[in-house]
Amino acid sequence: MCDSDFLKGMAMAQEVTISVDALGGDNAPSVVLEGCEQALAADSQLHIILCGPAEVVEPFAATHERCEAVATTESISMGEHPANAVRKKKDSSLVVGARMVKEGRAQGFFSAGSTGACLAAATLVMGRVKGVARPALASVVPSPVRPVVMSDIGANADCKPEYLLQFAVMATVYAEKIIGIENPQVAYLNIGEEEEKGSQFAQEVHKLLREKLPNFAGNAEGGDIMQGTYDIIVTDGFTGNVCIKTIEGTAKVLFKSLKGIMMSSLATKLGALTLKGGLKELMASVNADTYGGAPILGVKGACLVGHGSSNATAIKNGILTSANVVRTNVSEVIADYFAKNSKPASEEAKEA
Amino acid sequence: MCDSDFLKGMAMAQEVTISVDALGGDNAPSVVLEGCEQALAADSQLHIILCGPAEVVEPFAATHERCEAVATTESISMGEHPANAVRKKKDSSLVVGARMVKEGRAQGFFSAGSTGACLAAATLVMGRVKGVARPALASVVPSPVRPVVMSDIGANADCKPEYLLQFAVMATVYAEKIIGIENPQVAYLNIGEEEEKGSQFAQEVHKLLREKLPNFAGNAEGGDIMQGTYDIIVTDGFTGNVCIKTIEGTAKVLFKSLKGIMMSSLATKLGALTLKGGLKELMASVNADTYGGAPILGVKGACLVGHGSSNATAIKNGILTSANVVRTNVSEVIADYFAKNSKPASEEAKEA
Repeated sequence: MCDSDFLKGMAMAQEVTISVDALGGDNAPSVVLEGCEQALAADSQLHIILCGPAEVVEPFAATHERCEAVATTESISMGEHPANAVRKKKDSSLVVGARMVKEGRAQGFFSAGSTGACLAAATLVMGRVKGVARPALASVVPSPVRPVVMSDIGANADCKPEYLLQFAVMATVYAEKIIGIENPQVAYLNIGEEEEKGSQFAQEVHKLLREKLPNFAGNAEGGDIMQGTYDIIVTDGFTGNVCIKTIEGTAKVLFKSLKGIMMSSLATKLGALTLKGGLKELMASVNADTYGGAPILGVKGACLVGHGSSNATAIKNGILTSANVVRTNVSEVIADYFAKNSKPASEEAKEA
Repeated sequence: MCDSDFLKGMAMAQEVTISVDALGGDNAPSVVLEGCEQALAADSQLHIILCGPAEVVEPFAATHERCEAVATTESISMGEHPANAVRKKKDSSLVVGARMVKEGRAQGFFSAGSTGACLAAATLVMGRVKGVARPALASVVPSPVRPVVMSDIGANADCKPEYLLQFAVMATVYAEKIIGIENPQVAYLNIGEEEEKGSQFAQEVHKLLREKLPNFAGNAEGGDIMQGTYDIIVTDGFTGNVCIKTIEGTAKVLFKSLKGIMMSSLATKLGALTLKGGLKELMASVNADTYGGAPILGVKGACLVGHGSSNATAIKNGILTSANVVRTNVSEVIADYFAKNSKPASEEAKEA
């Protein structure tokens, strides 16, 4: 699925305000500003509240329609302890960005900054949806076969089976609303297809999903993720994080090796020219940036985290996807579900 | 690293007998027989005890030097419960193959059959090395950068931190003896580089390895595996199994997509011709079969498990690597280590 396919389904009728962390990402603020400019141009109903140093955000807002500047004095770096940084640096671009949603000035927040700090800010500042035991970090796995939603990919290293049931429910809403998959099927990432496979924990998760999740399709294995065997892969945040980084690392190494082969002689260089278009598409299809970042599911409002290495296009996609999450009411649908269906499950989780 | 590089370092001076499961693998017995023939031709000091149905193994042994037939009447299929099948089917080719090592008629056993059944047979029939709490299934991860030993990749879904210390020690011996890496460095597969990252379990493992493993290099992330950042990746069998299958699945999907691009027009077909040689090498380098299967470490004698989809070359490599494991005394060095160094650790593990 290429960039334009993914974005073309978005309804752009409704006015939406997204707060953006001007200091998020390795190449901030320049690519963030470029990304904001592109997003504003692409979506005429989009408003941006740009949070960052006055000298960065004010000149940008002054020269761009539908953009408001909120000057901040602090920044959170990648290396800082997430929760401590969020608690201490109340005037950081990241925390202020999240606060804009809490205060109702924006409906969604986007940052390509520290994932941990975004998770902490989403949970501590924006707040959990009632009934959600643990918000999850989801991702649209960049498979050339088709997009696969995976959750949790790193918010919760220690999980209880009940959490995974909630991750599955929230990912189902995201897959339906944002990826446009009808009646998406969820599989649990395990080490074998049979229900008795895996650790004690894995067996408990399988049993719980089998009992409580109507769209549960059984166990998946590692090979199923990229092959797009299932719409949604649910997993604990430890396994999910290792897996998503393994996919990225594997693709990176293979593309690098391929490039080496293509550059090895004049003949291979000429041969490679014929493949250039196809390869560019393939590389784009396995680029996570196409899907605009990783959503934090289970918090009040939209919150997406971009890759630290995001370029302007990735920032643009992240902001537009955040607006789409707002317009399709992902957070509200999740809140409704937990209000109606899973009070007992969330109580159990709290008690356990 | 191509096939010949990997095999050329093997010392072939010493006579070795390997028992082989004639019924192991999706294409058994035909590819197993072909593989045996190739292995016998490649190693003049190799003897094979071929275990399987009389009508399969006897004609082969009669026409091949250094090959003995042991007729068996049962077989274990991929779908059977491993431990139950091994306990019940005492005259299966897989169990009899393992028993040949137990009885001292062979020094190593190779099968491309059910991994679970091989693990059960290795543990129940061949027996654990004294001091080893849990044998591990290791693998040489097929990276085009360099071979990386990963353990455990699926023998132990539920682990204690002490097990991972032992997996690391055993993988160190394998990496030194079989892959030829001097002073190999071990990293622990976690979700961040910092020691405080990961689940409770991950933090305990990190602390233990930091204290007790001299060649511990710290935490690795998923992206490090294929990039060959470390010589050895140690992990629990759940994460390891998911990861190794994720790598295989990712490589498979990318090569398939690449093939699609190359076949899309006459121009791309011609262009692809120039890359054929390089691509063939790349695909071989990411083929697990090159390294002759996954060793079970911590059992008495050599035991390697081939991929179910093994072709004759993979079977040959598996048998030759099994012989190499015997000749380099991998099992004995591991036994010596645990006899001298880790009695307290194994006692702790037993008690815990």
